[in-house]
Amino acid sequence: STKESTGKPVGRYPVPNKKDLPYDIVELMEEVEMKIGFLPNVFKAMSHRPAEFRAFFAYYNAIINKDTGRLSKADKELIIVATSIVNRCPYCVVAHGAFHRIYSKQPALADQVVVNWKLADLSDRDLAMLEFALAVCRAENITEEHFQKLERHGFDREDAWDISMISAFFAMSNRIAHFIDLRPNKEFYSMGRTP
Amino acid sequence: STKESTGKPVGRYPVPNKKDLPYDIVELMEEVEMKIGFLPNVFKAMSHRPAEFRAFFAYYNAIINKDTGRLSKADKELIIVATSIVNRCPYCVVAHGAFHRIYSKQPALADQVVVNWKLADLSDRDLAMLEFALAVCRAENITEEHFQKLERHGFDREDAWDISMISAFFAMSNRIAHFIDLRPNKEFYSMGRTP
Amino acid sequence: STKESTGKPVGRYPVPNKKDLPYDIVELMEEVEMKIGFLPNVFKAMSHRPAEFRAFFAYYNAIINKDTGRLSKADKELIIVATSIVNRCPYCVVAHGAFHRIYSKQPALADQVVVNWKLADLSDRDLAMLEFALAVCRAENITEEHFQKLERHGFDREDAWDISMISAFFAMSNRIAHFIDLRPNKEFYSMGRTP
Amino acid sequence: STKESTGKPVGRYPVPNKKDLPYDIVELMEEVEMKIGFLPNVFKAMSHRPAEFRAFFAYYNAIINKDTGRLSKADKELIIVATSIVNRCPYCVVAHGAFHRIYSKQPALADQVVVNWKLADLSDRDLAMLEFALAVCRAENITEEHFQKLERHGFDREDAWDISMISAFFAMSNRIAHFIDLRPNKEFYSMGRTP
Amino acid sequence: STKESTGKPVGRYPVPNKKDLPYDIVELMEEVEMKIGFLPNVFKAMSHRPAEFRAFFAYYNAIINKDTGRLSKADKELIIVATSIVNRCPYCVVAHGAFHRIYSKQPALADQVVVNWKLADLSDRDLAMLEFALAVCRAENITEEHFQKLERHGFDREDAWDISMISAFFAMSNRIAHFIDLRPNKEFYSMGRTP
Amino acid sequence: STKESTGKPVGRYPVPNKKDLPYDIVELMEEVEMKIGFLPNVFKAMSHRPAEFRAFFAYYNAIINKDTGRLSKADKELIIVATSIVNRCPYCVVAHGAFHRIYSKQPALADQVVVNWKLADLSDRDLAMLEFALAVCRAENITEEHFQKLERHGFDREDAWDISMISAFFAMSNRIAHFIDLRPNKEFYSMGRTP
Repeated sequence: STKESTGKPVGRYPVPNKKDLPYDIVELMEEVEMKIGFLPNVFKAMSHRPAEFRAFFAYYNAIINKDTGRLSKADKELIIVATSIVNRCPYCVVAHGAFHRIYSKQPALADQVVVNWKLADLSDRDLAMLEFALAVCRAENITEEHFQKLERHGFDREDAWDISMISAFFAMSNRIAHFIDLRPNKEFYSMGRTP
Repeated sequence: STKESTGKPVGRYPVPNKKDLPYDIVELMEEVEMKIGFLPNVFKAMSHRPAEFRAFFAYYNAIINKDTGRLSKADKELIIVATSIVNRCPYCVVAHGAFHRIYSKQPALADQVVVNWKLADLSDRDLAMLEFALAVCRAENITEEHFQKLERHGFDREDAWDISMISAFFAMSNRIAHFIDLRPNKEFYSMGRTP
Repeated sequence: STKESTGKPVGRYPVPNKKDLPYDIVELMEEVEMKIGFLPNVFKAMSHRPAEFRAFFAYYNAIINKDTGRLSKADKELIIVATSIVNRCPYCVVAHGAFHRIYSKQPALADQVVVNWKLADLSDRDLAMLEFALAVCRAENITEEHFQKLERHGFDREDAWDISMISAFFAMSNRIAHFIDLRPNKEFYSMGRTP
Repeated sequence: STKESTGKPVGRYPVPNKKDLPYDIVELMEEVEMKIGFLPNVFKAMSHRPAEFRAFFAYYNAIINKDTGRLSKADKELIIVATSIVNRCPYCVVAHGAFHRIYSKQPALADQVVVNWKLADLSDRDLAMLEFALAVCRAENITEEHFQKLERHGFDREDAWDISMISAFFAMSNRIAHFIDLRPNKEFYSMGRTP
Repeated sequence: STKESTGKPVGRYPVPNKKDLPYDIVELMEEVEMKIGFLPNVFKAMSHRPAEFRAFFAYYNAIINKDTGRLSKADKELIIVATSIVNRCPYCVVAHGAFHRIYSKQPALADQVVVNWKLADLSDRDLAMLEFALAVCRAENITEEHFQKLERHGFDREDAWDISMISAFFAMSNRIAHFIDLRPNKEFYSMGRTP
Repeated sequence: STKESTGKPVGRYPVPNKKDLPYDIVELMEEVEMKIGFLPNVFKAMSHRPAEFRAFFAYYNAIINKDTGRLSKADKELIIVATSIVNRCPYCVVAHGAFHRIYSKQPALADQVVVNWKLADLSDRDLAMLEFALAVCRAENITEEHFQKLERHGFDREDAWDISMISAFFAMSNRIAHFIDLRPNKEFYSMGRTP
């Protein structure tokens, strides 16, 4: 249905009934719901276009669930939060703030980054990671100095690619969320707040 | 190789030799090269990460090569040019400016849009299409008024999704091009200039 | 002491020992601590300058604790959150987000306003109130149209003054917090999250 | 009355008759008028809310009339002019430009700062003082580098507090002046122009 | 000489001695000095390049001293002040503020426009004139709506050209003043302040 | 006539018939048409005001056709393209992009500068030249550091004047083109694209 169990709409486009969706999409939805405890609204909203649903989550999977490189799960979520707040994207900030709390076990850090990442309780390494991600987010010209700054904190060129690609992918996701008017599931607000 | 035939580098990441690439990637490259006459540098640059290469072009294909809706091939290229210039992305502006000239048979229009889309020789319909695409590009809050303005020019909500998704996808692509430092193939500059 | 019980500093200026503070300041601190359960760091930080401590809290009291007008306690906290995020002030956003949750009994609303007030679950009245507060916050020229828009939602000129004065006072407070590098007490992050 | 002797309104809120004002407020007004030769409109406008009048001028007094630290009277007025022009506040720029001319005996300097403080005939010390004040005015994150730069010109951390607090207080005052639409007394324009 | 009588430099380029200048330039300088009472520094600074001196003042003359159209001398100076403050140009704001005071016999108006033109004591006609001039100053796309707004206040298309050309010419002059570091003659600050 | 041979208007002001124009203006037009092969629309549009026509082209001539200094014809055109794109001026970017292609014999370089001058295939000398020109274009305060940076690439103070004056003159020209709504001749788009 186009609405959450609370009756609030998921976004401004109609959401198909599960029974009308292709099997592979239902299967992925059920797997995610099992893992998280509820189905994040982005899955409902994107199912309006099954071909794009597949493309979107395949791409997401390729960059978020790859198991090489120096970025931890919490690092990736922090990049998503820090760049999504630049675009003032309610869904991405709220959902990935929740995932960050879960993975990092630091219940206040994402909130700090949302207000002012430079004043958040972050290590120099994390500040350098976010600085690079934000340069990509703002579509700045990326220069050798950007890469060298990252290297000083132990990130090589493949890590730089990983950071950049997450930032670039969420530049897209934030805009998708804005045109769909995607609303965060209410569960996200409180997830991971108490250890 | 990491360089063009002219000896200029394609970007700042190494490009694998064709013989080291998976067969499906080589196959797609050869198909594209056959069709266009040369291999656009984005294919070379993205082959550095085969899994992401597949995800990127599958997504691109799902939104650019779909054959429903009111957007012509020239419309799609115009959206790409108009949004990529906001991010000052050399590769996307130059390559898709060339594709626009080919599809539209209007050799000056993309150049006009690059300088100042509001003063370009565009129909009211095209201006409305670009205005919507640019609101998405700038990550603005998209409201019902945005959709209603589009509707007045004959675009329904599915067309609005198509316009938005191209804008959102190139918000990602522009940023990828910036961190790769992706350079346009020299062939693009002159393509489609003479009818 | 200049540090919280957790050992984190309250800000970058030294904080006097309670025993060295004038009696009226200690008295106010104890009253606040009794009421809230802990002493908000702004009281510690401002006690570095007793005369300014008195002036600051007297002014705050005159505009926040006045019992005339149409602004509820939750309204006032919402104005503080919405304007303090413009200045990216960690202390004011986190502390007054907590107070908003307490007074409004809506645990997600302040978080929504922090990300994007225009997309938050707010009534038209609350949107009009924040729009006015933000015009003052950004030091815009305030015109008759601003007042008329407010009036359409039931706020008279005295309410407009109340809204403006809170916005103006926190324009000052946000800047004080920035130069002091005032850190939020850790208790604020979780206050009022669970009803 | 709500109007100046010239018949121009002081601002957009009604101004009480002197006879309806509390005695302490009238007393302060008369003292100021005696000293300056006319009553600056900010006193009239703020008397609309006696409690806030008292709080505002008590705070102003605590930071402007304190007699410790390295800031001269002219320094303080210069900070007010330089920050108030950022907010394009007619009252504060015109009134405090006049006070600066009086205290500094330099009839052109405030006018220069209004146009372009970096090109004004200022000492390096004064440029450093204004640079710090303007960082606070713009609600920037204030870092150790900001303080160190000041120290190089002889300002210690207590002076930094004084500079910041004036900048922060006028961030509030500029916004109050905007919502009241406070007009400068005509006397200010010519005050101190001829030595 | 490269310095004023006060010993302050006129700008950063050397200024030729009068005896080394072509006769027509000396003649124009003496005529201006006779009329104003002193030689404005722009004449000294531009004489560094005699051919450009002639071109600059011929152009200035063609647009400022034409005697057709609805713009008074005071109108023209007001346009110069309002646009030059956008570029924070000390010379143009100070010199033409002085000329405005002389022509308009309103000693405070230019100062008001410098701080905030929208809050200055201007007629609706003058506000419309400045709004148009500022749109040109900011290099906005000028549309039919801009012209129609002007027409509603009695300005025809030829007046619009006059307003625009003054704004455009001073867009150039402001930038020339910045690269020359042109300083206003001290006489300008007090000119026309007392009627 | 007010229209091009293609029937498109040259701009929004009427263009006099040749037979109604003063002889010196017709003579200049014919000389230019002979040299370029067609009459650039700026000559038609400016002939609406013969006195300003003469002043504009005399000034242009004094700064563009001077034969001293280190700026080549291609350098001057590059400065015009790089600064005119900041103001999004269709006429100046398209016409001077064409002239740059002719003089430089580099058919892609102006297009690169239009998209993103920092990523264009430019020498360090050319980057320094454009950086200085753009600082003037943006009406920044020009400091000794700006001049020293230029000197490191072989440009002396007289070259700096030349660069600045071209940038300043086109700050004016871009704004004139905007208020006239000056359209580029269609011939410019393809000029110099094939060597």
